[in-house]
Amino acid sequence: MIKIAIFGFGAVGQGVAEVLMRKKRLLEKLIGDYKVIAITDSKSSIINENGIDLSEALKVKREKGMLKSDKKTLDVIDSCEFNVAIEVTPTNIETGEPGLTYIKKSLKKGANVITSNKGPLVVAYKELMRICEKHNAKLLFEATVGGAMPIIKMVKRDLAGNEIYSIKGILNGTCNYILSRMEREKLTYEHVLTEAQELKIAEKDPSYDVLGIDSAAKLVILANALMNVNIKFKDVKRVGITEITPEAFEVALEKNYTIRLISEIEKNGKPKVSPRLIPLNHPLAISGTLNAILIQTDLAKETYIIGRGAGKTETASAIISDLVELYGK
Amino acid sequence: MIKIAIFGFGAVGQGVAEVLMRKKRLLEKLIGDYKVIAITDSKSSIINENGIDLSEALKVKREKGMLKSDKKTLDVIDSCEFNVAIEVTPTNIETGEPGLTYIKKSLKKGANVITSNKGPLVVAYKELMRICEKHNAKLLFEATVGGAMPIIKMVKRDLAGNEIYSIKGILNGTCNYILSRMEREKLTYEHVLTEAQELKIAEKDPSYDVLGIDSAAKLVILANALMNVNIKFKDVKRVGITEITPEAFEVALEKNYTIRLISEIEKNGKPKVSPRLIPLNHPLAISGTLNAILIQTDLAKETYIIGRGAGKTETASAIISDLVELYGK
Repeated sequence: MIKIAIFGFGAVGQGVAEVLMRKKRLLEKLIGDYKVIAITDSKSSIINENGIDLSEALKVKREKGMLKSDKKTLDVIDSCEFNVAIEVTPTNIETGEPGLTYIKKSLKKGANVITSNKGPLVVAYKELMRICEKHNAKLLFEATVGGAMPIIKMVKRDLAGNEIYSIKGILNGTCNYILSRMEREKLTYEHVLTEAQELKIAEKDPSYDVLGIDSAAKLVILANALMNVNIKFKDVKRVGITEITPEAFEVALEKNYTIRLISEIEKNGKPKVSPRLIPLNHPLAISGTLNAILIQTDLAKETYIIGRGAGKTETASAIISDLVELYGK
Repeated sequence: MIKIAIFGFGAVGQGVAEVLMRKKRLLEKLIGDYKVIAITDSKSSIINENGIDLSEALKVKREKGMLKSDKKTLDVIDSCEFNVAIEVTPTNIETGEPGLTYIKKSLKKGANVITSNKGPLVVAYKELMRICEKHNAKLLFEATVGGAMPIIKMVKRDLAGNEIYSIKGILNGTCNYILSRMEREKLTYEHVLTEAQELKIAEKDPSYDVLGIDSAAKLVILANALMNVNIKFKDVKRVGITEITPEAFEVALEKNYTIRLISEIEKNGKPKVSPRLIPLNHPLAISGTLNAILIQTDLAKETYIIGRGAGKTETASAIISDLVELYGK
């Protein structure tokens, strides 16, 4: 029986709980019996060693905005026995907290951890890997990059034996939405940003996306996980999309190019995030909020994966795939 | 120590031998010690229980067109002990032979099999799966569809927990080359076919590709492996690309569409291969000899994988990924 703890009960945590509940029969065929024995959010929690009624927990959270007990996550980690923590608290790429502490404490207990949280990995990748090794625990993080796209497992396992020459991709759906709308409708950045904010595709303060911060954080995670380097966020040369004009698209179009925010790192090269010209018929010239990643290797040559970069069930899909990776029969 | 037998020593078999030789140090980190104890082609073989000198075997084959001994593959299967057979003989989608017999005999000895050969899977998928179960052996076939693209493992494992609604894709690089050249250069089918034949992208007798036979075979494999159905080659409704005119592209272009040969199956639907209109900015509107597959599911929604559909090292990449799947630590 796999005992699961969920830390963070916002959209992603709730999405995971819904899938664990709705697909119990299918998932138990894949990984064996499981139960969720603890759920926490930033100020409350629920614990049941016999397995939480997820439907009830979701209802309480939605109605009251919090769970039943006021026990905090750190106490829950200390007092509960679980095999795997699903850590889905909000990202802070400067401190990694609160997720970083939750992940470390869980790993040090010998529990595995699955996270969708970029912060801890950006801040402390090598340290976390060392803790994993020392405590014989695993940390999986498919959901941190590219939403539902199984990029990390695909490269690590399915392109195993390949030497990776470069990683290049569109890692932020908000920027891609803005750029592809500017391209198609010949509108200004400001105009499309406002529209994206109305559609909730962009945040009120869009800096995290449009300045390339989110893309750079994801690039750091991909590079460290797949290219065996130890790059930090500050190593990424970063230019956002705020200065791109409709005229730039016009000039590009004359030569059959468009402009996309590309995150890239070559073997032995420096990581960078910047607007780049992409041929219109190139697989990276995708439109809308999709993400796309190109991996160049010696044997497989170029392999692209394209998919949803965000969303509640999409992120749940990546987290479930990590569960299957850990416990799949 | 993993004992490997290679059946078939044309381009693919030689490509695998080269990678097993060149990347020995890296691969042994991934799967542990291995040696190739038998290699056969259609009329000759080489056996060495202590491990064949692959460099020597490649040299002999290239110089003489055959190997050292005249022992046939069936004898080799009977007389040698191996853990895994890499079956890479030519495809015959009507009989599945000679690969089908080699695969069955190997599985019945309890050996695992990795194949790049569509024939046996198209002819006898269910039977082969039953033999695997009975003899506790595994049959992996990533290399049969989409060359280097790890589509089968990606869907089976990394989208585990997802319900598959449909599979849709471009599974034949020759057709895609012809169609994308017709689109770009406004040339006739006949003109581009001749050009493709000169470039060795199309065969002298191109029927297998341009009539959609190869695409249909791959669709049968994908559907049976990923959607838990039991479809046969004759169930696939099939229209090739030979009747497509430059005018058809012109009409499509007026509405911002192009034409591609799409293989598709929906849940509970009928499989088909036919030329379809694809929006110009859609990820399936790829150019050149690339392959592309779109998987639609409940959680991840749409996930695309795009890559090289053929080639010696690309196919070797898929075969190596199956080796890692079987023996990865």
